[in-house]
Amino acid sequence: MELDAVEIDIGTPSPTVLVHSEDAEELGAHPLDRVQIAFDGDVLTGIVEVTDELLDRGELGVTRPLGHVTGPVEVTLAPRPESVADIRKKLDDVELDREEIATVVADINRDRLNDVELGAYVSAVYANGLSLAETMHLTEAMTDAGARLEWDADVVADKHSIGGVAGNRVTPIVVPIVAAAGVPIPKTSSRAVTSPAGTADTMEVFCPVEFSREELRAVVDETGGCLAWGGSVNLSPADDKIIRAENPLSLDPPGQVIASVLSKKLSAGSSHVVIDIPYGEGAKVDSLAEARELAVDFRRVGEHVGLRLECAITEGSQPVGRGIGPILEARDVLAVLAGEGPRDLRLKSLRLAELLLEACGVDADPAAILDSGRADERFRAIVAAQGGDPDVTVDDLDPGGQTATIAADEGGDVVHVDSRGLSEVARRAGAPRDQGAGILLHRRVGDAVAAGDPLFTVHAEKAEKLAEAREVATEREAVRVRPPDESLVERV
Amino acid sequence: MELDAVEIDIGTPSPTVLVHSEDAEELGAHPLDRVQIAFDGDVLTGIVEVTDELLDRGELGVTRPLGHVTGPVEVTLAPRPESVADIRKKLDDVELDREEIATVVADINRDRLNDVELGAYVSAVYANGLSLAETMHLTEAMTDAGARLEWDADVVADKHSIGGVAGNRVTPIVVPIVAAAGVPIPKTSSRAVTSPAGTADTMEVFCPVEFSREELRAVVDETGGCLAWGGSVNLSPADDKIIRAENPLSLDPPGQVIASVLSKKLSAGSSHVVIDIPYGEGAKVDSLAEARELAVDFRRVGEHVGLRLECAITEGSQPVGRGIGPILEARDVLAVLAGEGPRDLRLKSLRLAELLLEACGVDADPAAILDSGRADERFRAIVAAQGGDPDVTVDDLDPGGQTATIAADEGGDVVHVDSRGLSEVARRAGAPRDQGAGILLHRRVGDAVAAGDPLFTVHAEKAEKLAEAREVATEREAVRVRPPDESLVERV
Repeated sequence: MELDAVEIDIGTPSPTVLVHSEDAEELGAHPLDRVQIAFDGDVLTGIVEVTDELLDRGELGVTRPLGHVTGPVEVTLAPRPESVADIRKKLDDVELDREEIATVVADINRDRLNDVELGAYVSAVYANGLSLAETMHLTEAMTDAGARLEWDADVVADKHSIGGVAGNRVTPIVVPIVAAAGVPIPKTSSRAVTSPAGTADTMEVFCPVEFSREELRAVVDETGGCLAWGGSVNLSPADDKIIRAENPLSLDPPGQVIASVLSKKLSAGSSHVVIDIPYGEGAKVDSLAEARELAVDFRRVGEHVGLRLECAITEGSQPVGRGIGPILEARDVLAVLAGEGPRDLRLKSLRLAELLLEACGVDADPAAILDSGRADERFRAIVAAQGGDPDVTVDDLDPGGQTATIAADEGGDVVHVDSRGLSEVARRAGAPRDQGAGILLHRRVGDAVAAGDPLFTVHAEKAEKLAEAREVATEREAVRVRPPDESLVERV
Repeated sequence: MELDAVEIDIGTPSPTVLVHSEDAEELGAHPLDRVQIAFDGDVLTGIVEVTDELLDRGELGVTRPLGHVTGPVEVTLAPRPESVADIRKKLDDVELDREEIATVVADINRDRLNDVELGAYVSAVYANGLSLAETMHLTEAMTDAGARLEWDADVVADKHSIGGVAGNRVTPIVVPIVAAAGVPIPKTSSRAVTSPAGTADTMEVFCPVEFSREELRAVVDETGGCLAWGGSVNLSPADDKIIRAENPLSLDPPGQVIASVLSKKLSAGSSHVVIDIPYGEGAKVDSLAEARELAVDFRRVGEHVGLRLECAITEGSQPVGRGIGPILEARDVLAVLAGEGPRDLRLKSLRLAELLLEACGVDADPAAILDSGRADERFRAIVAAQGGDPDVTVDDLDPGGQTATIAADEGGDVVHVDSRGLSEVARRAGAPRDQGAGILLHRRVGDAVAAGDPLFTVHAEKAEKLAEAREVATEREAVRVRPPDESLVERV
């Protein structure tokens, strides 16, 4: 059927096309069906939604992912994508081979699957797991689906944390240490999806983080490292689409996590990688045993795809550092680089840098690099190369002026600090959009407190956001205090 | 945040709302997130898509399911629906209790789940199955989610086929037989989703099929039966939403099928039901053993929810009747009611009517009712009560005039007639939208053919549809002929 393509600006991440109900009936197309659109010598796929009034008959409304399609196009009902049969197979708990996994990844990457099918894919992988062979195939297929950065050096360092821990802003400390030790470390990071800040959001407090490949290369050539947002260089694009489908149900099956992380690292052109696996109550990995199992699989798949890989299993049952939210984390980073700041953030950063340098075969002492000021200097060089102010000080970074401090109701010991609860409070306060919004933690697990002692302070830029955040903070007992005689055994 | 609701006519079945990207960022809402919309004393849920140009900042675009929302509304980011945790639990293969299943059904019914979550629900049920207890809870929850028809009689008959067999238009024959035997049978049927005709599509050849509850009651009061479309009386609305999510992957887990069918029967106010379970190559149920297992579960769940239920396990490896598509099936129906027509359609209809009447405790002979002309008379009374012409004859019903006959390449025996392949050809020919489009079968399994003998004729109303259908027909060997010496043992 020939239709006239007109742009409809709806920001769906999938290539939705709107079809007039009578044209849809004639095509035999129902909502969620796919149509093939012949345009400019290419055949594109659209996912059908039906409308009566937004279009005239004979028009095809194309949304942003297909925004370049315009004018008369030939539209036909598309057969089901091949990968739908593979997803069904995986739901039947049949192991997929290399080719089947490549088909699934290609269909996800080209937006050929609708959301129901994407939901089925992440569910199948979650319910039935991925074998080591499947994880290896998936890692390779996801890497092949996108572009790959290339660097001149043989040794290119990288790090990744599987996340779930609030604060934990080690990357802006590890990168300048490793770069100062002479190992290139072109680090790309994510923005927050459900957390109050990603590393890219925190770095944006200091300088721009969105760069083209060429611009990134220039920063790395000049400083030996970078601290940029990964989204603008389009590494492992299938991964972003899978993560979008995992988010609504918080599905994080180990095989998918491994493929996701390692495909990003391969695409970034990295050769030597340290993976931070936090475990504990509230972290993504519950137990030490599970963390160890994940580490073994990470190492096996890493070896298979040619990465030199070390895993750091880290305590993740409470936040790392004092600040949560872009500016509050940025202040912690500057303080640690100056030889001060939260002890846990310093120690974790040093240990990760040490493991990474060891993996790279470089004999250097991270603590010495940090304490000599060389890491601080290198960090400021990167900030400058990325277009920020290299002379920034902690005092330049103002947290939101609207504050509320949550105090202990009664005296006792802090028995738990809940990353997830604090993250939600920080988001309600406006983070990451309001850079100054977030939380400053005053107490950590094991600290003794008297009744009325401050536990944490919520910062916001707007009064109404502070009110919202305060409400959540009082609902959630994000910092749990128990009287000394109940700190080990709680009466319920 | 206060936004101004404006209608955006997009026929998404889910309650999508469009939010300007800057408002979305301020709300902390991502695509697929939910927002709560306070309107007219009610709190409604919308699923977020983001736009830059289709709306101004401060506007909220509401799609058809929320079309009544207009003017200033208060919009807040909604927490994740409770049922998401239950779906995750089911993905973890934990049995859900009555309350959890009720929560899932309520959230599906109120459109609180996005498509990824719906995909996860149907995947979890498919991958991990439903226990008998879960199936019972699900049947009850789905029934409770919608309205229920009520009838004055104690015995209200009904039938259902779990489908997958082309042709098979037994309902318009069974209903008048049962009604003529004195048992009320207010039958509602579906339209085609992926098949070339549903019973409602075929009945629409004779008369209107869309009625309000009151209109239906009048038809049943007058004639003892009806042959209407179920969609307009909104029975078990959650079922339609689940089926929409099952379709893309053709998922049909037995527990969900049972709950789906029985919730519709309970909602229709039926008390005595016969379930047709076709099995065989190409049918929804592969084997006799599987069909028997399903029948046992159907009976158990039926008993639990207070239905008197019989199952008929039927041969489903080839189409029933000669015609496929609305008019061609309607011609078969009229012929059988006149004591002629395809023998398999007659015999299957009689057997189902017999089982149903037995279940109802009525001593009547379906063959005698059919052969005396009383079923034909009753059918015409229903057609008249529904607003059609009671004097319709086979000759009034013209199949599409564009035809192509597919002939045997070589002589031999017909070894398989593929329902799925023929259905696809019929759909390409224009069925069910073009009522005259479809297929007339000339041969059945076991028939001997000579080279050049006609196997089936494709009918279409439009030449270009015929061309499309003919192309699919030659690709697919929908009627398989083998030389006599290879009809049992095929050399590959």
